[in-house]
Amino acid sequence: MGKKVKTAITPTRDEDYPAWYQEVVKASDMAEHSAVRGCMVIKPWGYALWENIVSKLDKMFKNTGVKNAYFPLFIPKSYLEKEAEHVEGFAKECAVVTHHKLEQDENGKLVPAGKLAEPLIVRPTSETIIGESMSKWISSYRDLPLLLNQWANVVRWEMRTRLFLRTSEFLWQEGHTAHSTEEEARERTMMMLEVYTKFVQDFLAIPVIQGHKTESERFPGAVDTLCIEAMMQDRKALQAGTSHFLGQNFAQGSNIKFQAEAKEEEFVWTTSWGMSTRVIGGLIMTHGDDDGVIMPPKVAPSHVVLIPIIRKPEEKRKIIEYCQSIKDAVSAREYGGRKLIVEIDDRDIGGARGWEWIKKGIPVRAEIGPRDMENDSVFMGRRDKSPKEKEPLKREEFINKIVDILDDIQNNLYNRAVEFRKENTHEIDEQKKFYDFFDSKNQGIHGGFVHAHWCGSAECEEKIKKDLSVTIRCIPFNSTTEQGKCICCNSTSSRRVLFSKAY
Amino acid sequence: MGKKVKTAITPTRDEDYPAWYQEVVKASDMAEHSAVRGCMVIKPWGYALWENIVSKLDKMFKNTGVKNAYFPLFIPKSYLEKEAEHVEGFAKECAVVTHHKLEQDENGKLVPAGKLAEPLIVRPTSETIIGESMSKWISSYRDLPLLLNQWANVVRWEMRTRLFLRTSEFLWQEGHTAHSTEEEARERTMMMLEVYTKFVQDFLAIPVIQGHKTESERFPGAVDTLCIEAMMQDRKALQAGTSHFLGQNFAQGSNIKFQAEAKEEEFVWTTSWGMSTRVIGGLIMTHGDDDGVIMPPKVAPSHVVLIPIIRKPEEKRKIIEYCQSIKDAVSAREYGGRKLIVEIDDRDIGGARGWEWIKKGIPVRAEIGPRDMENDSVFMGRRDKSPKEKEPLKREEFINKIVDILDDIQNNLYNRAVEFRKENTHEIDEQKKFYDFFDSKNQGIHGGFVHAHWCGSAECEEKIKKDLSVTIRCIPFNSTTEQGKCICCNSTSSRRVLFSKAY
Repeated sequence: MGKKVKTAITPTRDEDYPAWYQEVVKASDMAEHSAVRGCMVIKPWGYALWENIVSKLDKMFKNTGVKNAYFPLFIPKSYLEKEAEHVEGFAKECAVVTHHKLEQDENGKLVPAGKLAEPLIVRPTSETIIGESMSKWISSYRDLPLLLNQWANVVRWEMRTRLFLRTSEFLWQEGHTAHSTEEEARERTMMMLEVYTKFVQDFLAIPVIQGHKTESERFPGAVDTLCIEAMMQDRKALQAGTSHFLGQNFAQGSNIKFQAEAKEEEFVWTTSWGMSTRVIGGLIMTHGDDDGVIMPPKVAPSHVVLIPIIRKPEEKRKIIEYCQSIKDAVSAREYGGRKLIVEIDDRDIGGARGWEWIKKGIPVRAEIGPRDMENDSVFMGRRDKSPKEKEPLKREEFINKIVDILDDIQNNLYNRAVEFRKENTHEIDEQKKFYDFFDSKNQGIHGGFVHAHWCGSAECEEKIKKDLSVTIRCIPFNSTTEQGKCICCNSTSSRRVLFSKAY
Repeated sequence: MGKKVKTAITPTRDEDYPAWYQEVVKASDMAEHSAVRGCMVIKPWGYALWENIVSKLDKMFKNTGVKNAYFPLFIPKSYLEKEAEHVEGFAKECAVVTHHKLEQDENGKLVPAGKLAEPLIVRPTSETIIGESMSKWISSYRDLPLLLNQWANVVRWEMRTRLFLRTSEFLWQEGHTAHSTEEEARERTMMMLEVYTKFVQDFLAIPVIQGHKTESERFPGAVDTLCIEAMMQDRKALQAGTSHFLGQNFAQGSNIKFQAEAKEEEFVWTTSWGMSTRVIGGLIMTHGDDDGVIMPPKVAPSHVVLIPIIRKPEEKRKIIEYCQSIKDAVSAREYGGRKLIVEIDDRDIGGARGWEWIKKGIPVRAEIGPRDMENDSVFMGRRDKSPKEKEPLKREEFINKIVDILDDIQNNLYNRAVEFRKENTHEIDEQKKFYDFFDSKNQGIHGGFVHAHWCGSAECEEKIKKDLSVTIRCIPFNSTTEQGKCICCNSTSSRRVLFSKAY
């Protein structure tokens, strides 16, 4: 292989993927652990990415008729108990508020006081509290469909946390809709999965596989859970969004009924669907390289950084003016529905600037020294290429081509991810081969997505999970009917499902 | 007075202002109380207003160099204790998380389990938790100024709640900045107050008075608290935004130090500033009338509603098409930096539609029946005028004038509020007159803003508060030096301050 290339991130992905991830997040200045158990601090560069995600997704939701609202942070314990599976799923890891003030004890220490009659749970998800409102707001078929979404923080207590991927508090949106028919609710469940798919593929440049969760992997209380699954560069799966058809389960729990046209009172049919800050982890793990994050241009916090190279103080004013003129011209252009955002980094820290922006993943860098200015040009580097691969471009050319360059980066990131997934996706029909493939001793070489036959039994699913830490990520929509033998028990199966290790 | 005009809201403002307020919020479908103690549900029409407020304020912050970030919901008890006055101010009314799961007891009942070693407080404000991050992020003068903001939910336990005005959970933004000099921090404190002033006056159409809070009314831990105070239609004051100069108090509590250029290590100077969903209450109480809310066009969730009047089913298609053509033309126009939002309300509920939109406060309504269509016109009503005062306008005229009409409404609302405040603001120099003015027995007639002399003593301030429930809202920036006698103790005073009852 020749001598090792020096990289900005240590360790590299190949050396230690989990450590690489933590280091990339840190080096990109996107987020960090806080001193508060399991909670993260999202720093400006990471939050700006989240703002772009929110802004785009929010528009997509609204285009389907959804309206935003806001519901209480706290859920009375009794609400959580309204749906049996739901309480099972969420009671084990929640933040419980038991008091409403602090008072000094005899030693002057502050202790909880004002005990609440009923403990409150910090929302892990809001089906039950929103169901309470729905039961008041809905009385007739005229009130349906009710299409709501909220942007909020939620808390699920976690013992082992990882920035963006698994934190006790995270930010998300949760959509909640109510319908008069099962058909309409199922259509909405699918419609929102399509919105997620489009967003994740077109904006985050992450290819995904759509499918149904198996019964054991469903959202607690759901009749059907649809999901999109992406492959990270360690060949593990990450669930990037879910959309649940809840049947009438929550309607019954919260007593949400409507008067059908010329009919009896009926329970409504509900759905819920969510996407969280977790997709940021997915973005980093899909595109990041051994030099740091790579931001897909359509959601990048900034698109271009201009780095003036000033060797003599007397040159400074002219070079900055030159940069400013380029910034003005580039900022007037649009890509992905946003005006381009251009940074001028004139900090007095020399070459460290370029590497900082590489680690942050800004799509395009342009260095501008006295000679570039003389030549009326810039020295451009693209984040999807090697840091050394830079090219001089005439100023006008740079300005005129910048949108095409960004689009090329966006497409390149997507295509690379599709290619990577293709290389690491297999059909396996023999149990031994399947076990070998996922054997953790072979992880450096093996692992990935496997389409294999499954008989449909929870026992086989559980055995594979126990033996290999491999789960059925989904029953893909596009898996065609095909006769085969279950990879676990060898009994008859009529289609393949998607197996993988997962985050 | 002649016979009473029928109004959409009962009681009217004159009959019972607090009850009018509750009824207006309900009738406008903006928010409601939830079953969770002290927490509100913000419904789509209210949340859309909040989104417009957020969107505009956020841009204004960013224009001053502020960046958004996100910090944990939970604050360890020990953090709150870092600043003595601060813990005093906030420990009395906070939500305390003491456990991290629920478990079934022997009777099968879910009870809190997994007791935390240290209780966590749901943030009532984030100075201490953000200070913790600042102490890590700041080491040199190069890291300053650090200009952060977060949009978040906060919780301050309240026993008596009122939608938007006082709820246990509310939404807000909190800005937190750190600076190398006192002067720069004080400038930032003032700069953000100016942002609030501009926003509240130009967008919410609420005139405000800027000033300093007295020592006893300051934010716990602040050296100086600047505020803007608005007058509601019951002539009480509402604090619409605050900006705090925190000196080095929180820097010392959280150990936020920086290496000054060629100098010793020093503590930074910090500021914080916030505006919350409370301003929505202020907007309702400033502009609302006996028919409901009046939305200032610059922040209105929608600007125009078209109400097709369909008497025969066969007319429907043509009238809806006519409405759609108007909608398309009007939606292409802009006001206050936003494209106009137009609703077509073709629900089959007759005249109730018009009243619903009046109660919601949409700035412009246009009824369109077969005859209007024949005349190529619309029948327009403005929310700032009487519901009966409607006028026919030619279609083209309506489309061409709509932006001017909205601007006229915006200005009219502001000017009415300025006029009302003027009528209800007085200079009073005699104690008896002052006490009579604020006597609650006279509240139907009296009450308002009073500029009176104050000696500066906390005792006089406290006595007036105790006797009359009247507080010093602020020491206005524009109060000139003037010799006088304290309205309470008659000793020498050098300037007037603003007294009022307040929310």
